[in-house]
Amino acid sequence: VSGPDYHLEVYRKAKAGHRPSLTRLISTLEAGRPGLSGVLGAIHADAGRAHLVGLTGAPGSGKSSLVAALARQLRKRGRTVAIVAVDPSSALTGGALLGDRIRMDEHTLDQGVLVRSMSSRGSLGGLARATTDVVAVLDAAGWDYVFIETVGVGQAEVDIMRLADTVAVVSVPGLGDDIQAIKAGLLEIADIHVVNKSDLPGAQRTASELLGMLMMANAREGAWPVPVLSTDALAPGGIAELVDAFDDHRRWQEASGEGLARRRRRAAERIRVLARDRLMERLQDPSTSAAFDGLVDRVVDRSMSPHDAVDALFEAFTRPESLAGRK
Amino acid sequence: VSGPDYHLEVYRKAKAGHRPSLTRLISTLEAGRPGLSGVLGAIHADAGRAHLVGLTGAPGSGKSSLVAALARQLRKRGRTVAIVAVDPSSALTGGALLGDRIRMDEHTLDQGVLVRSMSSRGSLGGLARATTDVVAVLDAAGWDYVFIETVGVGQAEVDIMRLADTVAVVSVPGLGDDIQAIKAGLLEIADIHVVNKSDLPGAQRTASELLGMLMMANAREGAWPVPVLSTDALAPGGIAELVDAFDDHRRWQEASGEGLARRRRRAAERIRVLARDRLMERLQDPSTSAAFDGLVDRVVDRSMSPHDAVDALFEAFTRPESLAGRK
Repeated sequence: VSGPDYHLEVYRKAKAGHRPSLTRLISTLEAGRPGLSGVLGAIHADAGRAHLVGLTGAPGSGKSSLVAALARQLRKRGRTVAIVAVDPSSALTGGALLGDRIRMDEHTLDQGVLVRSMSSRGSLGGLARATTDVVAVLDAAGWDYVFIETVGVGQAEVDIMRLADTVAVVSVPGLGDDIQAIKAGLLEIADIHVVNKSDLPGAQRTASELLGMLMMANAREGAWPVPVLSTDALAPGGIAELVDAFDDHRRWQEASGEGLARRRRRAAERIRVLARDRLMERLQDPSTSAAFDGLVDRVVDRSMSPHDAVDALFEAFTRPESLAGRK
Repeated sequence: VSGPDYHLEVYRKAKAGHRPSLTRLISTLEAGRPGLSGVLGAIHADAGRAHLVGLTGAPGSGKSSLVAALARQLRKRGRTVAIVAVDPSSALTGGALLGDRIRMDEHTLDQGVLVRSMSSRGSLGGLARATTDVVAVLDAAGWDYVFIETVGVGQAEVDIMRLADTVAVVSVPGLGDDIQAIKAGLLEIADIHVVNKSDLPGAQRTASELLGMLMMANAREGAWPVPVLSTDALAPGGIAELVDAFDDHRRWQEASGEGLARRRRRAAERIRVLARDRLMERLQDPSTSAAFDGLVDRVVDRSMSPHDAVDALFEAFTRPESLAGRK
């Protein structure tokens, strides 16, 4: 029992609230097996209602406890919360976010919270693709909030944050100068700054530094005024205010047109990435791979440059008979 | 005075041994300006004679001193050496390998040694592309050995190492357990293992562990027997043996056919990357961008899935009139 119809049936059950079907579909999408474009099309048609909130920041900034506190707050308000914890560094180490799963145990009996850790045993590109699909199915299946939590501060994290409607960058006092450089890289993607562990010494200075950087960044007229909020996940202080800020940001996005602009950028990027994947598939397709191998031979014997080989390939896409003639 | 003919003229002078022209051309290729496919074609036709040697390993393993010692040894043998030091982490930090430049100062008056540090202010993909082009021009301009030195141990470093004919992975005793995980990731790309700082305590154990891992890796029949060599860049010990190992590996590659297989893999990967870049350019081309924007709109309003949008795009590449009809 497999194939496209099977996946659509699992998706139908997942939408109806059957948790094992949702979990199974997530695993299928994460693995990225072939034959999923039908169910991904159905998911795409249904998605677009959830508020996708990205949370990123340096290791040690207490993101996981913060996310747990946010989930508790949203449950109090009667909203459902799915949490996708992504660890791009696991592409190298193979590690998973077991710690996060364990810390979230208090929620495992609550049907209104779902936690999923995603690690990558393959490429970073594969992880971004899998995260996109998993977030989409959670959105389509009716979760009110989908949190996308990343560990670390590299380019991969920035790319994954671009999936979100609202990006919160979490800082923490006393992590030293390295963090300042990181903040500069993350500054442009932050919709909300959070100073977590606000009970630690130096929290006020960290908040002031962030405000100073935001003032220097010289936001254009009419832009969202990025707030700097302080939280203490253990107390818990500032959590309700942070949830309110998520909602404020979303309302502002819809009123200002920035929400639509962001969705267009996201769709364009999605099409580009899928087009790139499709091109790579085509180059491995039996019908073109013989011609491709012929071009590789000519590049290796240096009778043709790689750039000219690409010219020949693209000509072949337009006029499939041209490559045969060239051989 | 610019344009394709200008670049070809600079390249002609660089080949004739004019160092300022070579330096200028390297900067041009590093920046990746448009209009370079002519000179890149000429470079490709001339390249393929240098021995490209990759050196990688964890920070602190003494790679830079080792490369300096190798350059001295090769100069004694009358060979010329170009060194390209690549720092993928600079894509985030913007840093450059100034330290390496300074340590190599002893060579700056020797016309038989060239040192170039490459950092990336843009994407990692851009850095890999720039490194490929810079290594190619050094090869084409007649350098006997081109060393490609990377700092760090991530996927980006592994990708850059794939440019090399011979990859040496540098380990050092006493860097702790983290290094063991790293070695596992680098194990499959190592043609030669080097235990540097062999005067440190634990050097013998590090070498034994590497030999143990190699035995467990169960090399297939007829494969290159990966050696584990010990060096002490300051003494200097083992440097001549390491240079001999580079040469042994190259001779074995040519005799076994593995050299040709590696060149084919490298050419195929190069064509794939350039094809991907070309596709991205096409999507930004004015003639297709209006149609592309139309597809983005339909994905945003969820009347079309991203996968179906890609189908439409590829159909348009084959039959350019089809997109116009769809709008």
